[in-house]
Amino acid sequence: MTRSMSAEIICVGTELLLGDILNSNARYLAQQLADLGISHYHQSVVGDNPGRIQQVMQVALDRQAQVLIFTGGLGPTPDDLTTATIAEFFQTPLVEHPAVVADIEQKYAQRGRVMTANNRRQALQPQGADILPNPLGTAPGMMWQPQPELIILTFPGVPREMYRMWQDSAIPYLQANGYGQEQIFSTSLRFWGVSESALAERVDRFIQMSNPTVAPYAGKGEVRLRVATKAATASAAAQIIDPIAAEIIELAGDYYYGKDTDSLASVVGQLLSATQQTLAVAESCTGGMIGALLTDVPGSSAYFWGGIIAYANAVKVNMLGVDPQVIVDHGAVSALVAEQMAIGIQAKIGTDWGIGITGVAGPAGGSAEKPVGLVYIALAKPDGRVESMKYQLSTHFDRELIRQMSAHQSLDILRRRLLKIQD
Amino acid sequence: MTRSMSAEIICVGTELLLGDILNSNARYLAQQLADLGISHYHQSVVGDNPGRIQQVMQVALDRQAQVLIFTGGLGPTPDDLTTATIAEFFQTPLVEHPAVVADIEQKYAQRGRVMTANNRRQALQPQGADILPNPLGTAPGMMWQPQPELIILTFPGVPREMYRMWQDSAIPYLQANGYGQEQIFSTSLRFWGVSESALAERVDRFIQMSNPTVAPYAGKGEVRLRVATKAATASAAAQIIDPIAAEIIELAGDYYYGKDTDSLASVVGQLLSATQQTLAVAESCTGGMIGALLTDVPGSSAYFWGGIIAYANAVKVNMLGVDPQVIVDHGAVSALVAEQMAIGIQAKIGTDWGIGITGVAGPAGGSAEKPVGLVYIALAKPDGRVESMKYQLSTHFDRELIRQMSAHQSLDILRRRLLKIQD
Repeated sequence: MTRSMSAEIICVGTELLLGDILNSNARYLAQQLADLGISHYHQSVVGDNPGRIQQVMQVALDRQAQVLIFTGGLGPTPDDLTTATIAEFFQTPLVEHPAVVADIEQKYAQRGRVMTANNRRQALQPQGADILPNPLGTAPGMMWQPQPELIILTFPGVPREMYRMWQDSAIPYLQANGYGQEQIFSTSLRFWGVSESALAERVDRFIQMSNPTVAPYAGKGEVRLRVATKAATASAAAQIIDPIAAEIIELAGDYYYGKDTDSLASVVGQLLSATQQTLAVAESCTGGMIGALLTDVPGSSAYFWGGIIAYANAVKVNMLGVDPQVIVDHGAVSALVAEQMAIGIQAKIGTDWGIGITGVAGPAGGSAEKPVGLVYIALAKPDGRVESMKYQLSTHFDRELIRQMSAHQSLDILRRRLLKIQD
Repeated sequence: MTRSMSAEIICVGTELLLGDILNSNARYLAQQLADLGISHYHQSVVGDNPGRIQQVMQVALDRQAQVLIFTGGLGPTPDDLTTATIAEFFQTPLVEHPAVVADIEQKYAQRGRVMTANNRRQALQPQGADILPNPLGTAPGMMWQPQPELIILTFPGVPREMYRMWQDSAIPYLQANGYGQEQIFSTSLRFWGVSESALAERVDRFIQMSNPTVAPYAGKGEVRLRVATKAATASAAAQIIDPIAAEIIELAGDYYYGKDTDSLASVVGQLLSATQQTLAVAESCTGGMIGALLTDVPGSSAYFWGGIIAYANAVKVNMLGVDPQVIVDHGAVSALVAEQMAIGIQAKIGTDWGIGITGVAGPAGGSAEKPVGLVYIALAKPDGRVESMKYQLSTHFDRELIRQMSAHQSLDILRRRLLKIQD
């Protein structure tokens, strides 16, 4: 049986009402409901206030909602009131789950801490509710049917705990109860070095399609195209998605670098691994970000050996062999310094490839000649040659965005060269 | 007159219900309302559907809301229904504003386009509503009092248009109507090395207070306490907030590291700068993250000279002088290796302090003896001594969190030693 009932998302937290945090949980749940094909017409945000939470619940029930999904307010502090409020709404007593008490106690012990009375409150759930286990934190949620045709799910506000609990327990529970039998399956295609509008124009005829749908997203230099279709099984979806994805990838050419969970760092890693080549980095303006991106990929030690963070000029000279006269003549932010950094790290660590990067991340330090956002990236190659590229990022970008975009840009250059693409 | 009535935010857009975009507009408006001291207990998200929009309006009016702030659904496409739906709710006809028609026509002409009949719909507003001008786009909003004690404001969904309209027109309109005379001022106190519940218990009597309010937040190893009060001026607020903040800081002891925009990296930077000391890092498991955190702070070149990303053991040995026999005997993840890394980078770059870090970030590479989450951090000190600490982070933490927490932990150890705190 496939039900067509609707779900509402209720996010509890004064920090949302104060604008302290973005409501990323609502977005995640909305995407998940869409993928499961569960209708969803309303989201509400309410503070940690029992009366207002109950009023919002009543409004949702008046709208015939049949799945209420709560996030937030499950923690150990006195203002975490969601569980008790839901129990009170349905005039159901709270009961303590000994297994959860033991789990909480053990988790605190692992962290070298003692479970307090407040911590223990997290083991209380309404009588009759199933525990929604939280493998990553101390606060479990509930899966409860307090009355016919109504499912209540609660999650902590911590996004990574919520995501894991949703995937592990909530989806199976919903499916076992007749929801989400036909899912939306999708593939995200990832592109670098092209604007959203330019890519959208190039693949315009696909964006007009109704099945699969093709929707563009953009952020921090990357553009994604999400290719999606509704199907009963992953393999049925793949028959619709894959041919279109292949056509888009063909049309997009070099800009396409990977799909779904791929990153520029993981793709570079795959290309290096496949040819048993190695990489080292010499970072000035990015200060370690390229290394951090590369080592974010499990198993990266196979091809990424390390690098030097050459933030001070003395480090560039003494540890990378940059000619001090070049710094005097051309400045630390120059093509020659980037090249000598790349050559230096390649030689010093003995890798096949070396990346050198130097730039003006701002907000201070810019000049008319070398404004904020000017970045030089150099690549020392296995054949002994070195090439460098100059980028002028928008002067409206902040320090963080300039550093992030130039770190990714350096990985994209390496990706292109590993694929033997010349610009 | 200062009104104490409450506002609700109603975001209209199917893209929010599908999870295609984050609701950054709600966060912006929530922050603005908080700063203006306008109470705000509810946010709603609803699709481009007249019946559901009207139902959400009725719920808000039933809750005695006196300011309704809409975003989204003002554009030129057929599914932009917000304005017509609001007019219909109050049984008020729409009228066309000739000045807005002219403005829209001119803006389309500037972009080389011709105004269509759909575009022209953007000039329709309920009879009696004032235009809320949109200097950055074609869709204006409204400022309307359809009945006593009720203000309606509408904004397009495009964030930068909405922000500008809010600042230019909505704030003055609200203030002219008696709202926002008294603002909320707040300070965030930041803590490291303590759990949210342990800190909350320690400062429990402050969390019970009503003025100022003290609310805890936690994430990625950090705990924050937000101390907030309503006042007419910043200095009046400071008289209420500052004494309580000082008491909390006193009670929290070493766990407190800074406030508001401070980070562990910026606080360490201030401490190093104040004593003209310098720092270098040798990173294995964090792969450059400590350097990236330090150089995220503008002006960090004054005290952070650089470092070595020693991901491969060969780099630890050849560039940091780690004894290869120590790696054989104790493993690369060991106290001795961390210590030799710290001493090595201190000597190599010639800084006052050196940090060395090595650990098992996972998901693979763990063993019974050295599980995922085991991290050694060492600090080489100006007096030539070195100390190291062993941490066992939760085996449930993912790679990213293990790396982030241990990177911050290493900065916290340095902070403590710079403050002459011994554990």
